[in-house]
Amino acid sequence: MSTRRAFLAASAASFAAAAFPLRAQSTAGGKKLGVALVGIGSLTMGQILPAFAKASLVRPVALVSGHPEKAGQQAAKYHLDPRNIYTYDTFDTIKDNPDVDIVYVVLPNSMHAEYTIRAAKAGKHVLCEKPMANTPAECQSMIDACKAAGKKLMIAYRLRYEPMTQKAIELAQSMGTLQQISAEAGLTIGDPTQWRLNKKLAGGGPLMDMGIYAINAIRYLSKQEPSEVAAMISTNSADPRFKEVEETISFLLRFPSGMLASVLTSYNMSVNRVQVCDTSPQFEVSPFQTYANNHLYTLRGRDRVEVSYTPVNHFAAEMDHFAECITSNKQPLTPGEEGLQDMKVIAAAYQSAAENKPIKIV
Amino acid sequence: MSTRRAFLAASAASFAAAAFPLRAQSTAGGKKLGVALVGIGSLTMGQILPAFAKASLVRPVALVSGHPEKAGQQAAKYHLDPRNIYTYDTFDTIKDNPDVDIVYVVLPNSMHAEYTIRAAKAGKHVLCEKPMANTPAECQSMIDACKAAGKKLMIAYRLRYEPMTQKAIELAQSMGTLQQISAEAGLTIGDPTQWRLNKKLAGGGPLMDMGIYAINAIRYLSKQEPSEVAAMISTNSADPRFKEVEETISFLLRFPSGMLASVLTSYNMSVNRVQVCDTSPQFEVSPFQTYANNHLYTLRGRDRVEVSYTPVNHFAAEMDHFAECITSNKQPLTPGEEGLQDMKVIAAAYQSAAENKPIKIV
Repeated sequence: MSTRRAFLAASAASFAAAAFPLRAQSTAGGKKLGVALVGIGSLTMGQILPAFAKASLVRPVALVSGHPEKAGQQAAKYHLDPRNIYTYDTFDTIKDNPDVDIVYVVLPNSMHAEYTIRAAKAGKHVLCEKPMANTPAECQSMIDACKAAGKKLMIAYRLRYEPMTQKAIELAQSMGTLQQISAEAGLTIGDPTQWRLNKKLAGGGPLMDMGIYAINAIRYLSKQEPSEVAAMISTNSADPRFKEVEETISFLLRFPSGMLASVLTSYNMSVNRVQVCDTSPQFEVSPFQTYANNHLYTLRGRDRVEVSYTPVNHFAAEMDHFAECITSNKQPLTPGEEGLQDMKVIAAAYQSAAENKPIKIV
Repeated sequence: MSTRRAFLAASAASFAAAAFPLRAQSTAGGKKLGVALVGIGSLTMGQILPAFAKASLVRPVALVSGHPEKAGQQAAKYHLDPRNIYTYDTFDTIKDNPDVDIVYVVLPNSMHAEYTIRAAKAGKHVLCEKPMANTPAECQSMIDACKAAGKKLMIAYRLRYEPMTQKAIELAQSMGTLQQISAEAGLTIGDPTQWRLNKKLAGGGPLMDMGIYAINAIRYLSKQEPSEVAAMISTNSADPRFKEVEETISFLLRFPSGMLASVLTSYNMSVNRVQVCDTSPQFEVSPFQTYANNHLYTLRGRDRVEVSYTPVNHFAAEMDHFAECITSNKQPLTPGEEGLQDMKVIAAAYQSAAENKPIKIV
């Protein structure tokens, strides 16, 4: 571990080479890229459709849904051409719609792979919600399909496109050797019948939905990949919400540099905090992954000093970034490979808990 | 796990039965019990000897040291009879000194068992610093020796005797079912030649010295005993401080109720925080284990409200408690069994890290 600093320097350098300006420039007079939203759940209706008003480079043009009435209502609300409403059966004909440049997959996790692959085959670029899919194998098939089609694939890690997370990454880069990161992301979930509590549809429980933010944060703050995970699950299976998926999972991660990390995620605890240590905790982000009103604090002993930033709409920033990548033929900051990497960590964490032993992450 | 609440209720009840008033009453006119301090290191000189001025029921009467000159200086400073200075060779003759009621063992960890047993055989009550010893077997031998001698044994878990920790325990008891506790306790250690970095003398690294506070806090806040541990160690053995003991160890604990806990402890990170969650974080103590100026905050979303308390000298409170237990023939709040329990967790954590697998705690 005497090479810890050298290792980190190398990691940072390779990462820096992949980075580029995150804020999209409005292309004055340029045509906005058209987005087809696949799935009209609460995320689409509550966050993504309203976000287009804040976006510079994209516009909503089509909806794909199994609920024609709901689709019609949303199309009317956002002034979309009613002819641009697709069902899952007619989805593949989207290839003939020149208004659609991007397919944004906002479906239950188990459907991400299928619709990403079908979108790529229809000749569209794909923006896919996190988690990328239910398994690393599905993630790889999505990467392969987009590559074969010559289309771009980006995973919707919205935090990477907003300034507070950028400031946190800068703070982490300015620190001494990172020794430990603690990340907690959880919520108290309601309706037991929702798809997020259905193992087949969601692929898992809070780890798929919330824990992935913790994993991703540890990775983007450290710019390192974990090599090993040791996990424990705690589930009250008498609770109707947790018949199929875990209630709470916590795990330790080991990194090649010697850094350790701990993750706590739950569907029965509202927690939302990241703390980053070199020889002491240097900053805390709490909450770190809500849609707005995240807070970054530098720490010096008991002093917590809030770092100010100008907030942006996460979904608008994320979609503008993807449009810019398409227009300029650049690799997105969060391509499919980024989603695959988180999914490998998730799969290893589940395996560790199931087999009750540490698992190497390869 | 449907019996989680019933389990907790039963635990709380059995614990409450063992509790009693913590603040010693000054016994007007009563003779203060005499304390012999074994070991004159920085803790004795910097904290314990000055604390007697704040204590009501104890007074310093003797010193045991391998450094006669240092012992003489401290004896003069605190007006002790020079005849009450013992060496390790003459220590056993303390049995003939009626001024000594209590032997307070403040030696390197590896010497705790020997001097506790010798003190008991000399007919003295024993207050022993944490960690109780280097191994559970040593702890058991200390318990057995004090029992055989009919003398009381208390481990110097000073936090249990000061009001902020009491308030934290009350808060934890008033919460819903505890789901998770995170505890971090670490410091950046200096001089590589100190005994705390010598494996034989210290028994281990930061886990023995600082991590034990985290374990103890999780146990006194939850009033539960962990059943399993999964640990990871990270040590830069090129650092001269960490040739023999771990640099950092982190672990997860599982409890019979379903509660999980995470611990981080290090000799290369200054961290000091406990957070307790039911369905959200309800309070935080940071720092939680310094000699003074610990801070307790209730949490409600982003609101952190500091809980005020009237501080006391931890060592004075601890020694007064022990004196009261001796005078009233009561069981100390932190008897040898309490030290043994922490040592079992520590031993299991080290075993888990060494064997790279979760270990059941029995």
